[in-house]
Amino acid sequence: MTEDKKTDNVTDTVEEIEAEPIFAEGDVTEEGSQEEALESFEMDQAQPEIAELEAKIEEMDSRYLRLQADFDNSRRRARLDMEAAQKYRAQSLATDLLQALDNFERAIQIEPDTEQTKSLLQGMDMVHKGLLDALKKEGIEPIEAVGKEFDPHIHQAVMQVQDESFDSNVIVEELQKGYMLKDRVLRPAMVKVNE
Amino acid sequence: MTEDKKTDNVTDTVEEIEAEPIFAEGDVTEEGSQEEALESFEMDQAQPEIAELEAKIEEMDSRYLRLQADFDNSRRRARLDMEAAQKYRAQSLATDLLQALDNFERAIQIEPDTEQTKSLLQGMDMVHKGLLDALKKEGIEPIEAVGKEFDPHIHQAVMQVQDESFDSNVIVEELQKGYMLKDRVLRPAMVKVNE
Repeated sequence: MTEDKKTDNVTDTVEEIEAEPIFAEGDVTEEGSQEEALESFEMDQAQPEIAELEAKIEEMDSRYLRLQADFDNSRRRARLDMEAAQKYRAQSLATDLLQALDNFERAIQIEPDTEQTKSLLQGMDMVHKGLLDALKKEGIEPIEAVGKEFDPHIHQAVMQVQDESFDSNVIVEELQKGYMLKDRVLRPAMVKVNE
Repeated sequence: MTEDKKTDNVTDTVEEIEAEPIFAEGDVTEEGSQEEALESFEMDQAQPEIAELEAKIEEMDSRYLRLQADFDNSRRRARLDMEAAQKYRAQSLATDLLQALDNFERAIQIEPDTEQTKSLLQGMDMVHKGLLDALKKEGIEPIEAVGKEFDPHIHQAVMQVQDESFDSNVIVEELQKGYMLKDRVLRPAMVKVNE
């Protein structure tokens, strides 16, 4: 940088000045030493203002770099926030839908005694499947339970039983279906666990 | 600003210099005129570097202000994007659910001939209402159609009829239900319009 070069010159000349004081009567008649004196004196006088300006430039430079760093951080945060908002956008609606889905599944657990009921049930099975497909498209899926090992992160134990036909700590029955939204638990499965 | 004051002094001294050249042999013996010469010479020599530094400071200042303006704009955009993402977050899941909802409504349009079918239909009506309530909570609502004036923004005319019992340009029949998501048309209602 030109600033640095200049500063070096200056410090040099400053030493020269200390070497031979410039206002001694004897000197001024002598060409060379006078020009030398003029130059060093000039640099010496101008130095404080130049130094001040160079300091200001340095301070403005670091202020600019700080602002740029803040800008980059803010952009990165905004991007991450938006990604999370997109990833879990279905959470609110899906959560509200779960109760209707529970009722739906309860209502179709019947043995049809007529053809009409049977065909209505078949239609409802298709509708139910359609709802689950729509949820799955947004990353919402039922949590597996019966026959799986109990996992406190996704299963909620509401009863304990002793059942020889199951291993210990395995889920014997599901009392309410649980759902995941991608890597999030939308609702844990309420289960009966074998001791 | 101190810079301005300084610049004035300098231009003055520059004139002085032109008035009396400082390296004339005659002068150097004379104290006063020599000091004067030294000062004006000094200012004259230092001026180019000082001007350069001051120009750089000005340029850095406007560069900082430009970056700050970009920063503010980027923050405002990010906020608006996030607000829109939140407002319409249910759009994707709701859109996927519409077909299942159509099938649901078609399937329950039957006349029950047994008590079992009747009670199953009642259960399904409740489930259907629960689904619509969940959608409504997220701002998704059916578009009114039959008996309303045709509105190309929310209604899609698939047939025209002539029916004395309706006014002109009024919707006579709804062939597929439409839905709004807040101020957005999720799906227009497909309708039969009176000429």
